[in-house]
Amino acid sequence: MIFSEKQCDAAAVYTKSSVKAAPVLVTKANLKDNKAQAVFCISGVANACTGEKGMDNAKQMATLLAKELNIKQDDVVVASTGKIGIQLPMDKITQAVKGLKGELGEDKFDDFSKAIMTTDKKHKEAIVKFDGVTIAACAKGAGMIHPNMATMLCFIVTDAKISGSSLKKCLVDAVDNSFNMLSVDRDTSTNDMVAVLANGMVGEVSMDKFQEALNLVCIKLAKDIAVDAEGATKSILAKVKNAKDLKEARELARAIVSSNLVKAFVHGNDPNWGRVMSAIGQTEIPLDVDKIDISFGGIKVMASGVGADFDESEAKEQLEKKEVEIIVDLHQGSASAEAFGCDLTEEYVSFNAEYLT
Amino acid sequence: MIFSEKQCDAAAVYTKSSVKAAPVLVTKANLKDNKAQAVFCISGVANACTGEKGMDNAKQMATLLAKELNIKQDDVVVASTGKIGIQLPMDKITQAVKGLKGELGEDKFDDFSKAIMTTDKKHKEAIVKFDGVTIAACAKGAGMIHPNMATMLCFIVTDAKISGSSLKKCLVDAVDNSFNMLSVDRDTSTNDMVAVLANGMVGEVSMDKFQEALNLVCIKLAKDIAVDAEGATKSILAKVKNAKDLKEARELARAIVSSNLVKAFVHGNDPNWGRVMSAIGQTEIPLDVDKIDISFGGIKVMASGVGADFDESEAKEQLEKKEVEIIVDLHQGSASAEAFGCDLTEEYVSFNAEYLT
Repeated sequence: MIFSEKQCDAAAVYTKSSVKAAPVLVTKANLKDNKAQAVFCISGVANACTGEKGMDNAKQMATLLAKELNIKQDDVVVASTGKIGIQLPMDKITQAVKGLKGELGEDKFDDFSKAIMTTDKKHKEAIVKFDGVTIAACAKGAGMIHPNMATMLCFIVTDAKISGSSLKKCLVDAVDNSFNMLSVDRDTSTNDMVAVLANGMVGEVSMDKFQEALNLVCIKLAKDIAVDAEGATKSILAKVKNAKDLKEARELARAIVSSNLVKAFVHGNDPNWGRVMSAIGQTEIPLDVDKIDISFGGIKVMASGVGADFDESEAKEQLEKKEVEIIVDLHQGSASAEAFGCDLTEEYVSFNAEYLT
Repeated sequence: MIFSEKQCDAAAVYTKSSVKAAPVLVTKANLKDNKAQAVFCISGVANACTGEKGMDNAKQMATLLAKELNIKQDDVVVASTGKIGIQLPMDKITQAVKGLKGELGEDKFDDFSKAIMTTDKKHKEAIVKFDGVTIAACAKGAGMIHPNMATMLCFIVTDAKISGSSLKKCLVDAVDNSFNMLSVDRDTSTNDMVAVLANGMVGEVSMDKFQEALNLVCIKLAKDIAVDAEGATKSILAKVKNAKDLKEARELARAIVSSNLVKAFVHGNDPNWGRVMSAIGQTEIPLDVDKIDISFGGIKVMASGVGADFDESEAKEQLEKKEVEIIVDLHQGSASAEAFGCDLTEEYVSFNAEYLT
């Protein structure tokens, strides 16, 4: 759990899935007043597709922690991640909450970020300090790459003073630049949630600087998730340049990191640029094909819509890197976007085929 | 090539990709008058991302065949499938066309359907006869599962008499019920095309019967493609029942066969129904979760939105079949749809990683 000594202004964004887990629904209701003081996260059980009992259990989580911390019940953000369709072990949770307040500590951020992991191989944290304030965040998840545990959870805390509505605006923008640009978007889970709590104990800051710092934190964590993806051996950074507008740039960049065929050629170090064209074509966004250039890292592989004369071994070298850059220059406008993904490997399939219910 | 003694009424549907191969553009122009008399298909080279030269070559294909057959140049449907970004070997093609007319024969349908294969393991044909007319069709492709050769091509011929505009209407409906319900939709290629030619040599037929027969033919070929998918060991039939309307039923059914996580649990015979809920939730279609039932074949695994009490070994048995049925009953309306897919295997990844440019 995370606890703030003072009640915080708070905001969150949730999965857009039409199958929402109980904790998502409970947190949404609790955050209606844009206030929160604690986060209670359970790893191992999603509490999704659990009916009325699941809703009662998610509310009970908030009740239990609020009592332990002596705060208001609707100031608790509850979250779950894990298997769909099974009920929370409420006896174990009730026991575990007792005395939890005594275990709080300023040096225990790592403990929290490790406790929320499911099939993550590494815990994921980001901290930015500016003008005397701190933004600290941690996340769990590994893109589309995880079994029922596909959930992406991220909790962000700051001592900056910022209103709930401003927090929401900043959070939406940061998430659009980071987690929404992960290949995840094709596999939104029932439990995804990003929440930010600001207790204002330091003071007001420039909104521009806060936004910039929040973006940094979220992009760092999104990249961590791509790198940690199940079975992945490398990450992919897709840059789309000079698109008509930001919306199109983002959609095109996401299409590249979402394509199984792109992910497979990156895995095989095969400079198969035709698959990049296939991937962006699938968006059905009107494209002036004859203007498009594609590069892998510094090596141009397609120029003005036709194959460039490139050295295959140099292109392969670019694909052998730990972070593979695929750059598509549309020459059709001035908007740019970056998307984050990973390669598709045999291990991904065997992991997800053999994962037991 | 396919040749009709009489000029035919004709219609076609094409890839919606914004990166369209040259033959797609040339055929679209040639079919503006809804007339055609021959099909010329090249396998091995996609003629996509080939610039002006590629357009000239696609037109040249039509010119060469029209000359050989003594028909109008714009009565030739040209199609290509294969690698993106390389030019057609026009010398070889020019040579090959010479004397091709002499090799025509009524018993050579198999030769054509085999000649258009790329990485297909089997050729795919369907023939339906009713009221004295015949609809014969062949297809190549293997869903999203193929490298640059992801192309789905289908050519349908009939001796029924039916106008170009009616043909188009029937074709769109048949394709919506078949090829558009393949998991392909996530990986539309630059070259996809389904064309139908009707030479009217037998006579008029009931439009309802023609539609029914055309649907049969296209669904049979779509299923053949799912079965033949690269690396697949079994096919998936996703049935969505009692949805609000047909559009939603189709989108939900497609979401199931398109999900990597669903495809992986089917491969591993793991009755992981939570992933089906995740998959349909991603459509963001409003769902009354508490009403939904899920079955694998005859085994109900989720009832009214929560896990059913099922025998795991019986559920596994359903997943071990060559055609796995996933049935989602929404109890929210009366529309139904079926989608066709296959499992995701380690072989798919290794094939696509190692496939050479």
